[in-house]
Amino acid sequence: MKLASYFRSTAAYRVRIALNLKQIDHSLVPIHLLRNGGEHKQPNYQSQNPEGLVPALFIEDRVLSQSLAILEYLDETHPTPPLLPGDPLDRAYVRGLALSICCDIHPLNNLRVLQYLSGDLNASDEQKNAWYQHWIATGFSALETRLANHDSTGEFCFGDTPSMADLCLVPQVYNANRFNCPLDDYPIIQRINARCLQEPSFTLAAPENQVDAE
Amino acid sequence: MKLASYFRSTAAYRVRIALNLKQIDHSLVPIHLLRNGGEHKQPNYQSQNPEGLVPALFIEDRVLSQSLAILEYLDETHPTPPLLPGDPLDRAYVRGLALSICCDIHPLNNLRVLQYLSGDLNASDEQKNAWYQHWIATGFSALETRLANHDSTGEFCFGDTPSMADLCLVPQVYNANRFNCPLDDYPIIQRINARCLQEPSFTLAAPENQVDAE
Repeated sequence: MKLASYFRSTAAYRVRIALNLKQIDHSLVPIHLLRNGGEHKQPNYQSQNPEGLVPALFIEDRVLSQSLAILEYLDETHPTPPLLPGDPLDRAYVRGLALSICCDIHPLNNLRVLQYLSGDLNASDEQKNAWYQHWIATGFSALETRLANHDSTGEFCFGDTPSMADLCLVPQVYNANRFNCPLDDYPIIQRINARCLQEPSFTLAAPENQVDAE
Repeated sequence: MKLASYFRSTAAYRVRIALNLKQIDHSLVPIHLLRNGGEHKQPNYQSQNPEGLVPALFIEDRVLSQSLAILEYLDETHPTPPLLPGDPLDRAYVRGLALSICCDIHPLNNLRVLQYLSGDLNASDEQKNAWYQHWIATGFSALETRLANHDSTGEFCFGDTPSMADLCLVPQVYNANRFNCPLDDYPIIQRINARCLQEPSFTLAAPENQVDAE
């Protein structure tokens, strides 16, 4: 199993945690999103993965894209420890937490979008930061409320073991810190993030601990 | 089961198709995203669903948010007809197609983002349309290539029965047409969309056939 990864990609970070957590033997293939105009835009990579995004999981003769699809695949084929609870309503809740990050925050704040803002829309650095912080605040406020309202919130987003939601939360908090977003209003998110980072599966997957870290 | 829906919401449209396809008894609760400053922003709705987004599925004493989490829930609890194939690699592929729409296209082009562009970023209508069309073209190009490269592409995105990927594709094509995006470069997407719209499950879920359609 080979994972196309970029140290700062939060989507790749999610999958790196899962591979560690489930102790799945794998290797990383660094794809630099900035160097040479973006290695993910090179014909060699695009021919293997037409979406041209990172992460991608190469397995047998197939390539899997989209981090959440990869997480579901890893959970189906390597069920221990599980990334989702057993009850369908609980599973929907945990998936909903994960998707609120992956659909409502991350896509608005990733590199290609910020590049479009400063390029085609001539946004200033100030406007770009305001944009970034707006979607973090909108998304994290909703997530904080949801975590506060649910009895199932424990040491982690759901109970006392990591789930798919935590695998999405920690990379997003990392990225929010990188953009200097104030997180004072989200004590539960901060607490869970700190708890996750006590786990080697999470810290070994962190951007600063990758072979391609700068 | 009650679904909070808005006739033009492509995320709600995905769930409406699934409910029809699986013949699940349900009622719709229209939430108007523009009227009264947006009914989804009203305290009454926010207290039930703190993300304040549509769709939301109310079931027993729970509220499920995030359309893909709802689709997975419906598929787990009402497995016939299935929204995903049986093999884990195939399931990852179909989920990947769905997520490429739900994460890489839709979040960039929905109402709140277009409102931010014209508001805080003072984008002109022309810039807003260019933004919309850019993310459709980027996302649909990758999707078209993927569908062209895969032997599993049939009458529908995967084989000859509807899957989670088709439930995401049709609403996105509807929205692309609404914004006058040229789709000539995506013959497979167009063919699959036309095939889906021969199915009553899809047409009954279409925006123009909703009780709150304008």
